[in-house]
Amino acid sequence: MKPLGVTVWFTGLSGAGKTSISQRVQEQLGEIYNTELLDGDLVRQTLTKGLGFSREDREENIRRIGFVAHLLTRNGVIVLVSAISPYQAIRQEIRQKIGSFIEVYVNAPLEICEQRDVKGLYRQARAGEIQQFTGIDDPYEVPLNPEITCYTAQESLEESVAKVTEYVLAKLHSSALTLPL
Amino acid sequence: MKPLGVTVWFTGLSGAGKTSISQRVQEQLGEIYNTELLDGDLVRQTLTKGLGFSREDREENIRRIGFVAHLLTRNGVIVLVSAISPYQAIRQEIRQKIGSFIEVYVNAPLEICEQRDVKGLYRQARAGEIQQFTGIDDPYEVPLNPEITCYTAQESLEESVAKVTEYVLAKLHSSALTLPL
Repeated sequence: MKPLGVTVWFTGLSGAGKTSISQRVQEQLGEIYNTELLDGDLVRQTLTKGLGFSREDREENIRRIGFVAHLLTRNGVIVLVSAISPYQAIRQEIRQKIGSFIEVYVNAPLEICEQRDVKGLYRQARAGEIQQFTGIDDPYEVPLNPEITCYTAQESLEESVAKVTEYVLAKLHSSALTLPL
Repeated sequence: MKPLGVTVWFTGLSGAGKTSISQRVQEQLGEIYNTELLDGDLVRQTLTKGLGFSREDREENIRRIGFVAHLLTRNGVIVLVSAISPYQAIRQEIRQKIGSFIEVYVNAPLEICEQRDVKGLYRQARAGEIQQFTGIDDPYEVPLNPEITCYTAQESLEESVAKVTEYVLAKLHSSALTLPL
C-alpha cells in the first residue's frame, strides 16, 4: 500500500501573502515529510515558461501546475502550490482530479494588497503598464468552499501558518494518507 | 533521511521500442516501488501541449519533462521517461540536473524502425506529410555513454526489460537510494 500525499493550494490576490505562508509551512512540514513548493512566480521560469496572462494562458498555467501537483501527491508528497489561480472553475477541476486537496484562501482586501505592493505590480497596473492584472482589470473569483481561510490583514503570519499546518497534519493523521518517512 | 528515486530515461528513434519496454518495466517495478511513466507522446497532450517539433520546441519538451522527472525523483519515485529526445546536449543537461539518472539507449536501426512503422509516421515523413521527423529530416544524436543499450532488433522484449529492471534494482540496492514502500 503506497502512501498518498496531499496538495495544499494557496489562492489569493497578488500580495495577499501566499508565498510567505507557503514557504513557512514548507519549512515546518519539510522537517518530517516530503514536501515540494510550486510557486506560481517561480514555475513561470521553468514549467510554465512562455505563458502570458490571458484567460487561456492562465488556465493552462494552472492546469500544468495541477498536473505536476497530482503526480507528486499520488506519490506521497505534500505539495504546496502558491498561485493567484483566480478562476473558480479551474480550481474546482484540479481539486476533483487530485482528490486529496486542501484549498487555502489567502484573503486580504485589495486595498491592503495594493498598499503593500511588495513587487510594485499594482502601481504598474494602475499606470496601465501591465494589463490583465488580477483585481485591477482581471477578475478574482473568490473560493466558495475553501478548507481554510487566512485573513492576512488581521492575523499574524504565524497564526496563518499554524492554521494550515494543523489542518494538514490532522488530515494526514485522520486518514492515514501519508506516513512520516 | 528521505529516500531518493531515480530517473530512467529511454531515448531512441520512433518505433525503436521505448514505450513497450518502459511500460513493461513499470509493470514489474510498480508492484514494489512508486513509479511514474512519462511517455513523450502522452505528455504532449498535457504537460507539453502546444509544443511542436522545431529544435527549440523539442528542447523545451525535454526540459519540461526533465523538470517533472527531477521533482519526482527527489521524492523517491522511479521515473520512467520514454521520449525520442534526439539531442545529446539536452539529455546531458537533464542528467546533470537530476543526478540519479540512468540513460537507456533503445537502439534499433532506422531501416527496422521504418519497416515496423507502427504509427505510420515514417510513411508520412517520407511522403513529406510530416516535417522534422527524427531520422528522416531531423537528426538523432546517438547517446555517447548510456548505462544500458537495448538492441531491440536482436533481443526480445523480455530480454530488454530484464536488462533495465536488473540495472535499476542493482543501483537502488547498492546505493540504498530508495527503500521499498
